[in-house]
Amino acid sequence: MLDDAPFNHTAHATLLDLFSEFGKIGAVQSGGISRLAASPEDGLARDSLCDWFRHHDFEILVDEIGNIFGVLDLALGDPTQHFFCGSHLDSQPDGGKFDGALGVVCACVCGLVIKDAVAKGEIDPFYRYYVVACWTGEEGARFQPSLIGSSVFVGLMPLEIALARQDHEGVSLRHALSQIDYLGTAQVPAPGHYLEVHIEQGAKLETANIPIGIVSSCWGAKKILMEVSGRPDHTGPTPMEDRQDALLAASHLVVQANEISHHSTSTLYSSVGRIDVSPNSPNTIADKVQLWIEFRSNDGEALLEAEHQFRHSFDGIAKSTGCELRVASSEDRAVVEFDKHGIANVEDVLSKSNIPYLHMTTIAGHDAIRLQSVCPSTLLFVPSRNGISHSPDEFTSDDDITAGFDAMLHAVSRLISAVACDDLQPSSCETKN
Amino acid sequence: MLDDAPFNHTAHATLLDLFSEFGKIGAVQSGGISRLAASPEDGLARDSLCDWFRHHDFEILVDEIGNIFGVLDLALGDPTQHFFCGSHLDSQPDGGKFDGALGVVCACVCGLVIKDAVAKGEIDPFYRYYVVACWTGEEGARFQPSLIGSSVFVGLMPLEIALARQDHEGVSLRHALSQIDYLGTAQVPAPGHYLEVHIEQGAKLETANIPIGIVSSCWGAKKILMEVSGRPDHTGPTPMEDRQDALLAASHLVVQANEISHHSTSTLYSSVGRIDVSPNSPNTIADKVQLWIEFRSNDGEALLEAEHQFRHSFDGIAKSTGCELRVASSEDRAVVEFDKHGIANVEDVLSKSNIPYLHMTTIAGHDAIRLQSVCPSTLLFVPSRNGISHSPDEFTSDDDITAGFDAMLHAVSRLISAVACDDLQPSSCETKN
Repeated sequence: MLDDAPFNHTAHATLLDLFSEFGKIGAVQSGGISRLAASPEDGLARDSLCDWFRHHDFEILVDEIGNIFGVLDLALGDPTQHFFCGSHLDSQPDGGKFDGALGVVCACVCGLVIKDAVAKGEIDPFYRYYVVACWTGEEGARFQPSLIGSSVFVGLMPLEIALARQDHEGVSLRHALSQIDYLGTAQVPAPGHYLEVHIEQGAKLETANIPIGIVSSCWGAKKILMEVSGRPDHTGPTPMEDRQDALLAASHLVVQANEISHHSTSTLYSSVGRIDVSPNSPNTIADKVQLWIEFRSNDGEALLEAEHQFRHSFDGIAKSTGCELRVASSEDRAVVEFDKHGIANVEDVLSKSNIPYLHMTTIAGHDAIRLQSVCPSTLLFVPSRNGISHSPDEFTSDDDITAGFDAMLHAVSRLISAVACDDLQPSSCETKN
Repeated sequence: MLDDAPFNHTAHATLLDLFSEFGKIGAVQSGGISRLAASPEDGLARDSLCDWFRHHDFEILVDEIGNIFGVLDLALGDPTQHFFCGSHLDSQPDGGKFDGALGVVCACVCGLVIKDAVAKGEIDPFYRYYVVACWTGEEGARFQPSLIGSSVFVGLMPLEIALARQDHEGVSLRHALSQIDYLGTAQVPAPGHYLEVHIEQGAKLETANIPIGIVSSCWGAKKILMEVSGRPDHTGPTPMEDRQDALLAASHLVVQANEISHHSTSTLYSSVGRIDVSPNSPNTIADKVQLWIEFRSNDGEALLEAEHQFRHSFDGIAKSTGCELRVASSEDRAVVEFDKHGIANVEDVLSKSNIPYLHMTTIAGHDAIRLQSVCPSTLLFVPSRNGISHSPDEFTSDDDITAGFDAMLHAVSRLISAVACDDLQPSSCETKN
């Protein structure tokens, strides 16, 4: 079935058309999109997804954190079993069109092909239901932390805490979801397997000229929200020695986090992407600063050491600036290994179909990482041009999209069917072609 | 006349009551006020001022940059001559009640006392008109630069450029003024002398236990708006060496500006009060940062050297971060000396009334500095508790307010009258009492 070129041609056109539609929702002048979680733009994208579900006989469920599920009855297989595919529709501010939306669209169109193949007797499904999941607030741009919808779904974050999270304006996620009418009540069946297609957000696939990455693990991360307290005062007459300049202290922290990553003996990334300053007026010394700092590594020890060094710097910065430095919250994300059985099956089916692939790790967080805590999960990457993401310049070519979709179809056909190779073991992390 | 205790008692009560009314407009929970230039709160304060003018027979003029003038006809003196007193009603975000508003209120009530004294024949005015000036956008918090209204008034800033200035949301000053109905058309007579009472915003008067400061000069300043350009990218997968992190580069600049002030051989202050970061999302590397940097000194050479050192740091920061650093605008404020004849007259009249005073310099900018470029200007300071300003903790006691007001009355009585001591010269900068 999956080598049926005319059929795939139709599916490819459907896929690219549908993806193009989502790229228009929340489009901004830069060429990117701004579709922040639970914003009006996110609401429009969700409405389009639900319309599509209705047109293609998916049952729609919306849960209490606003995750949307489109449930497709394959009419065969175990009625207690659900195979999930999905990703997210929210974006960074002025972000790219591909991050998240591509995975949702692939999941949608994949469902149509799978249902058709089941009807034709080309797949004998173990799972009776194919479920497209669209997770709330993956990006963590408007509401922190990231992966908020999938974290609540798998029970790693309490619902009430998640709904109470506030954006920069003090709007709660609960209120924002209710404003766009996506605060649901549905009880959602447990996933038996989860598969997600996502852009790589790195340049390894492009450099190797390989269309698909099978992700075996995710780096760990340490995310720290710092609060720096100084004293508001006039930037003019206040003697330098009397100042408690919270922006100066925060700047030292930004530099410090960067230096720690450069001096680590392991590969360790660090960044500060967001800073909120009060009162943020040119003539007033800042008295309050919040900083969102993160360290990432595939070496858990290196993360611990980075945090230790970072905290060790506080006293000196506090002393030299007269400010108070406080860790307001801190989140540990452990290194996660994806389901080995799923990896082995995908390796096997891609090899048999002569689709080249690369084994990869992911540094960015994805909903699939959260799902791995409750069911076997599989994450597939497609190339990102120049590795750029969270930017209007984010780009994946149509050819790479359709090649990724074809690999996904092979993977889902295998994993959803009753003939999955239970005895397969993942290979070493090498390119196969 | 001015030793008439019952009269002053009435004036003091009027003064404190009126000041208290302005302290309620734009009051915020912290105990401070947020009355940003041309905001609805500023509009309410302006309306209250105009109501007060109407109740006390001041003619109201609003010019093209929204400066408000209340013109009081003293019925005697040269009808071509105008004596101006004033300050501003806009505040910093979550700023203090005293900064600006105190000077406007003192100017208002002083006018009533002066008019009464002229009517009684106690003052023989050279100036027929007493004008209370309320300057637009002194603070530079919402619209930069600071001193915008007085700068346009004296011809140091073109009207069209000032009106086109935009706030953080992209709202122009023109639009904001028209929204609160203070975009006027009045042609305003030229001031013959300007006098302003302001809080010190430093602790010298409090420490010396002296109620009044006569300001002889203002420090120079160098104000630099920097733009840092990096590249938006995912904070996770982007390799450290490929990042162009504009917030990291900006943090180096903040630290650098501070170090320059500490290493200067002259007294040199520096600060960065405001930073705007885009997209300011925890998971995206910042691609655009704007920084408002200032250096202040009473040594013009030290300012030049500071700027030189600051610019010298750009190459290294650009190289280490991959970012582009650009000076978007740069403003030089020269050291300004206030009118010596006015200072000598105020010294003389305060000495004769046994009011102790201190000679001072101001580091903060004030509208009086702008006015000095078109007419003799006099700036008087009253104490600030602990020297704190631009903060809800800003405070001047009622006793200090009324003592400052009495000193102002003496000064204005002398300067407005036909008997000003033309041959007086300012003394050396010492306390007299």
